[in-house]
Amino acid sequence: MKKHIVGIDIGGTKLATVVADENANILYKTRKPTLAEKGPDYAIQLLFDMVDETVAAAGLKQEAISAIGVSCGGPLDTKTGVVYSPPNLPGWDALPLKARLEAEFQIPTTIENDANASALAEWRFGGGRGYDIVLYMTMSTGIGGGLVVNGQIYHGANDSAGEVGHQILLPDGPRCGCGKRGCLEALCAGPAIARRAQEAVQKSPKTALLKLTDGDARAIKSEHVLAAARDGDALALQLIEETAYYMGWGIANLLNILNPDIVLIGTIAMAAGDLLLQPIRETVAKMAMARPVDAAQIMPAQLGENLGDMAALALVV
Amino acid sequence: MKKHIVGIDIGGTKLATVVADENANILYKTRKPTLAEKGPDYAIQLLFDMVDETVAAAGLKQEAISAIGVSCGGPLDTKTGVVYSPPNLPGWDALPLKARLEAEFQIPTTIENDANASALAEWRFGGGRGYDIVLYMTMSTGIGGGLVVNGQIYHGANDSAGEVGHQILLPDGPRCGCGKRGCLEALCAGPAIARRAQEAVQKSPKTALLKLTDGDARAIKSEHVLAAARDGDALALQLIEETAYYMGWGIANLLNILNPDIVLIGTIAMAAGDLLLQPIRETVAKMAMARPVDAAQIMPAQLGENLGDMAALALVV
Repeated sequence: MKKHIVGIDIGGTKLATVVADENANILYKTRKPTLAEKGPDYAIQLLFDMVDETVAAAGLKQEAISAIGVSCGGPLDTKTGVVYSPPNLPGWDALPLKARLEAEFQIPTTIENDANASALAEWRFGGGRGYDIVLYMTMSTGIGGGLVVNGQIYHGANDSAGEVGHQILLPDGPRCGCGKRGCLEALCAGPAIARRAQEAVQKSPKTALLKLTDGDARAIKSEHVLAAARDGDALALQLIEETAYYMGWGIANLLNILNPDIVLIGTIAMAAGDLLLQPIRETVAKMAMARPVDAAQIMPAQLGENLGDMAALALVV
Repeated sequence: MKKHIVGIDIGGTKLATVVADENANILYKTRKPTLAEKGPDYAIQLLFDMVDETVAAAGLKQEAISAIGVSCGGPLDTKTGVVYSPPNLPGWDALPLKARLEAEFQIPTTIENDANASALAEWRFGGGRGYDIVLYMTMSTGIGGGLVVNGQIYHGANDSAGEVGHQILLPDGPRCGCGKRGCLEALCAGPAIARRAQEAVQKSPKTALLKLTDGDARAIKSEHVLAAARDGDALALQLIEETAYYMGWGIANLLNILNPDIVLIGTIAMAAGDLLLQPIRETVAKMAMARPVDAAQIMPAQLGENLGDMAALALVV
């Protein structure tokens, strides 16, 4: 009986494969370094081997697998299954990932960009359960997003919808990884929080922030800002306030445009909780229209360590 | 045979009713002033009479009408058919518009906010024909919007999606009708263009703009700015450039979030054509990500004078 599924999570630093039953209960998991510098052929051969190994370790034969779901950094084309040069996967240029996997395993394979797959996983298994319109936002080294409408990912015209982190708030603001200036991501992602903190400590050398890094301003990361803010450090609290202001502004715009039932925010917001989310909610209430504010909860995402696995499985469960 | 349809277009200044065949070819049309100050009961009784009159004038009996579509200023609830205090219809507070019409005519009635209904009409009859994802933007006294995905209006959680004119670009910018500051609408709608022009002529008294209004700065409207720009007036061209910059910035954000196949812009963009649209496209290409820019055309809307009628009919055709 074909009722098991395989999930593949492809990241720039690690590859993971999982085998799960028809309810997405994970039976076995394998994880290996991507070694992205070795290029796509190395990683894909490694994935072939990992899938074989994971299926066998789960006590199954390949015939028991009905579908493979793949969560991968975009851009990619979900219809053709071709990956177009994701920033974290050098050399994956116009790579026919779906075709390569289907040729190897003869199993129907669905590929999806990681932010969209994560949004679907939050809707299916996490904080978005029971909601019709779920906006999921990543908030870690970058800010990405995915919109799930009545259980379906909203892809847009060419699978590039949901780039919520690249809405521009300050056209003369800090440079973003995408090459533009003042994107939400350049103001609120982890590295942006760290950069602002590193600059701010120059003027406030007494901040607890510097104690957390033994006086090394350059070693300050967003985690240190959260920790110092929790201890009541004034500078760290001000950095959190600034971050919440820009996040709130960006989310207010998203509420006016998308009118979701719930906004779920990942990593940094999960770690920070209401310390960050409460000022975000207050800014959103000031900057968005009343009706979309009434409709939308703003909450931390729920899937933590297993997000990548559940994202891949959500595509085929 | 029930195969004709009725469209009702409710605006703050005029009411229109049309009868059309099953292909939305209009057979007869009636138009009367709303006299909004007389309140909803007056307007609704007037609509009842206008529908009767229009159906009779088309040589039909009421039994020939299969459905009524109503395009009305929002906010409103499309499921319950209740209208919630549109700014241009004083006294229409929690008004059960759908129920009132269905009680009178015993004909299934669909109500929709005018921007969404217009978006559907552009998809069905206008510039959006053949496209999967159509973003329509009004650009006249306000800036509104509607998103049509595979022929369906995207409503959001409580019918307030598509408020694209209230994305905030400049939080310290000019006051918007919605009460916030620096919304796209407060920078680019007709009154905003006029306001900027009225301010600018103080410093450039030689502009052709003032000639168009016999020297009266306060009489300058967005139409005058377009006319003077077409004649090469430097100040008017600069005002167009500014408008295109903010519109382009706002649309760039929308492309990153929604990834449409086409963006159709109404009234002012239809009047201005490439004079406004070309610099908008150039700004969008600079400020949005490459993939959504590749996917999206940015064009004037196509339905002009008949937009309100076609919007109402599109809901039930």
